[in-house]
Amino acid sequence: MKRVVIVGGGFVGISLAKALARVAVPVTLIDRRNHHLFQPLLYQVAAAELSAADIAAPIRSILRRHRRTEVLLGEVVRVDKEQRQVHLADGAVVGYDWLVLSPGTRHSYFQHPEWESLAPGLKSLEDAHEIRRRVLMAFELAEREPDLTRRQALLTFVVVGGGPTGVELAGALAELRRFALARDFRRIDPREATVVLLEGGPRILTAYPEALSERAKLDLRKKGVEVRLEMLVEDIQPGYVQAGGWTIPTHTVVWAAGNQASPLLGTLGVPQERDGRVIVEPDCSVAGHPRLFVMGDAASFRHDPRFAILPGLCPVAIQQGEHAARTIRADLAGRPRKPFRYRDKGQAAVIGRARGVCDIGPFHFGGFPAWLVWLFVHLFFLIGFRNRVLVLIQWAFSFITLQRGARLIPDGSAPTTAAQPPLTPSAAPETR
Amino acid sequence: MKRVVIVGGGFVGISLAKALARVAVPVTLIDRRNHHLFQPLLYQVAAAELSAADIAAPIRSILRRHRRTEVLLGEVVRVDKEQRQVHLADGAVVGYDWLVLSPGTRHSYFQHPEWESLAPGLKSLEDAHEIRRRVLMAFELAEREPDLTRRQALLTFVVVGGGPTGVELAGALAELRRFALARDFRRIDPREATVVLLEGGPRILTAYPEALSERAKLDLRKKGVEVRLEMLVEDIQPGYVQAGGWTIPTHTVVWAAGNQASPLLGTLGVPQERDGRVIVEPDCSVAGHPRLFVMGDAASFRHDPRFAILPGLCPVAIQQGEHAARTIRADLAGRPRKPFRYRDKGQAAVIGRARGVCDIGPFHFGGFPAWLVWLFVHLFFLIGFRNRVLVLIQWAFSFITLQRGARLIPDGSAPTTAAQPPLTPSAAPETR
Repeated sequence: MKRVVIVGGGFVGISLAKALARVAVPVTLIDRRNHHLFQPLLYQVAAAELSAADIAAPIRSILRRHRRTEVLLGEVVRVDKEQRQVHLADGAVVGYDWLVLSPGTRHSYFQHPEWESLAPGLKSLEDAHEIRRRVLMAFELAEREPDLTRRQALLTFVVVGGGPTGVELAGALAELRRFALARDFRRIDPREATVVLLEGGPRILTAYPEALSERAKLDLRKKGVEVRLEMLVEDIQPGYVQAGGWTIPTHTVVWAAGNQASPLLGTLGVPQERDGRVIVEPDCSVAGHPRLFVMGDAASFRHDPRFAILPGLCPVAIQQGEHAARTIRADLAGRPRKPFRYRDKGQAAVIGRARGVCDIGPFHFGGFPAWLVWLFVHLFFLIGFRNRVLVLIQWAFSFITLQRGARLIPDGSAPTTAAQPPLTPSAAPETR
Repeated sequence: MKRVVIVGGGFVGISLAKALARVAVPVTLIDRRNHHLFQPLLYQVAAAELSAADIAAPIRSILRRHRRTEVLLGEVVRVDKEQRQVHLADGAVVGYDWLVLSPGTRHSYFQHPEWESLAPGLKSLEDAHEIRRRVLMAFELAEREPDLTRRQALLTFVVVGGGPTGVELAGALAELRRFALARDFRRIDPREATVVLLEGGPRILTAYPEALSERAKLDLRKKGVEVRLEMLVEDIQPGYVQAGGWTIPTHTVVWAAGNQASPLLGTLGVPQERDGRVIVEPDCSVAGHPRLFVMGDAASFRHDPRFAILPGLCPVAIQQGEHAARTIRADLAGRPRKPFRYRDKGQAAVIGRARGVCDIGPFHFGGFPAWLVWLFVHLFFLIGFRNRVLVLIQWAFSFITLQRGARLIPDGSAPTTAAQPPLTPSAAPETR
């Protein structure tokens, strides 16, 4: 019996497994996590708006009714494309007839891996919790910091990278500080906190038309985000960021500037882009290995003249997963394959409360209508009726009350003597 | 200006801070966490029913409108009752005129601290996540375990202690396995998993009338929980538990058997019970130190003849907090203090879906009515309108669909070669 192996439970993996339901072929889906994660809302977990479970669903549950599909919790560390086997970290080996790799991306710190611990990125739930912890803890430490300069550094939040993730996170942090935390402290005024968005290029949201970039920049500035363009980060150290010749004192930096494909792809021994993405054929297979596919943001697809680079969006992943299912069906039936064609569904980004930008075919618009479109599109792509209802209710609460519902500091123990940045004894409230 | 310092943001601390709102005295509330936690629902976080944020609320937000109240995130490590100061882990010192200590309890492993890592308890959100991780991971490992004996051990879950926490967790695990996971696996049938509840004494729920203990035991057995009485745990090792002369092969043990008061109380140098609770006067102060109070489950209160030991319940904590506020008001006004009197509000425990036991004054009942009472009482004590709505909706979903909404494996990376229990390479699916 021939077997399809899928590596990665993102939108490629889920849509492929679902599309194969009516095909009489066993499927094994392997993921390092037990859950499918809706990455576009991850920034809301980081900004204490949503809980982890609201934007994730167990892969097993999603594919429960697909009796021919088996889900394995495991980390694939190597692909042997000659033997047609994937090797797992625990030593297990799984053979395949068709292999679809969609392992996603990690952050790229370019030549500066040492920046990672100082400026975490936002790819997984752990990342989101870490960013939430740092942001909320910075306010707590500022409340107890008597030194004005240090307090201002604690209340400065720098987001590096003006793509959708950076823009959405900067907007969310600006509103967290402005509304949810506004009246909770006694010694600091969280509204005085500074959110800085650093972009290396001449405009933010480069994947959007120029007018929308401008619109987004103005909306962010109205919400109090300092948008600084053409500011390449030169150095990140505990306590400050250096960019474009400026030094910004800060204790909280978030990295949303660069991606590189999973290191797993390096084990294939096939042509890759500089960022690690695998260059694929028009049917998303790897040259010379027609039954080995690379998809999602791990693939570099150069064949559709309309798209120089396919964007890292859910619709691309979903359509590629469905295309892989059609290809496997064609192979099984002995029919010729068709090339992958992306049907552009447009894109949308949100800029805080009631503001967004939409780029859908000939329609480019911003403001409240764009925010509404963004909201319903994201609810639609979120998997699970329960998650949709819970997220919608929490959004309604946040919209009406301006509060944030998930303001727990994860692993949130109090600062000790070894806390970084250190809390000086003189920071004690003078209560006697 | 005289100052009240409260250590602990549980029900004592919150109710005291709220009751002091109309008193012209500054208040400092110190907690290691930034959130108030509703412990009675913690077992539902462990059993993947609720998310952490649903049963917790930031202490700052709860007390936002109390402008004279200041919240400090910090860990109190020592009380100097002569100098009237509390010392924080980061070196800060806070002086007080009245001090109310309600630091809560931790687990007690009696003479076996080495059991802690093998059998985590259920006191904090981190505990709940750890238990959830172990339970869900055991099912994942069982799915890949070819050896029948090892697989059965992976599918055996032992809860130690037949108090409310143990009973509620055992019931929740029984339903998780029976409904939510039932159709998600391909090689194992989660319904065959065993949930064992070990109780050292002759009956479970000893704080309840005997008829209700019996009722709870029968309800648990109907739900498939193996309730074993008079089984004192003799040893816990990786892979098995020894109790009452029996050896139970298992990889997942949860400890709900014993409590001891916070080690902070040891720094007071005042009379303590063997479990660390401080013996308090009729007004909950410490003998010889009328402005130092110990409350909640950290206090041993022997003065009300109707209650040999006050139960560790929310109503006790809330009433004590309010009593402390009245006492401080009396001190400020130069009026005499009154002793604390507990007004018994009864108690309720839930036994899985639609079953519970209630003991409210002269009324003792079980089954569906008790479950309904439990449900509304717990929603009532849960802080925050938003949390109430979210929890109610998730309960409704769980009740109707029998699914569990928070089935993420926290920090859930896949098993590696060093996984414990190890996954043998032969566990790979035979796909070739």
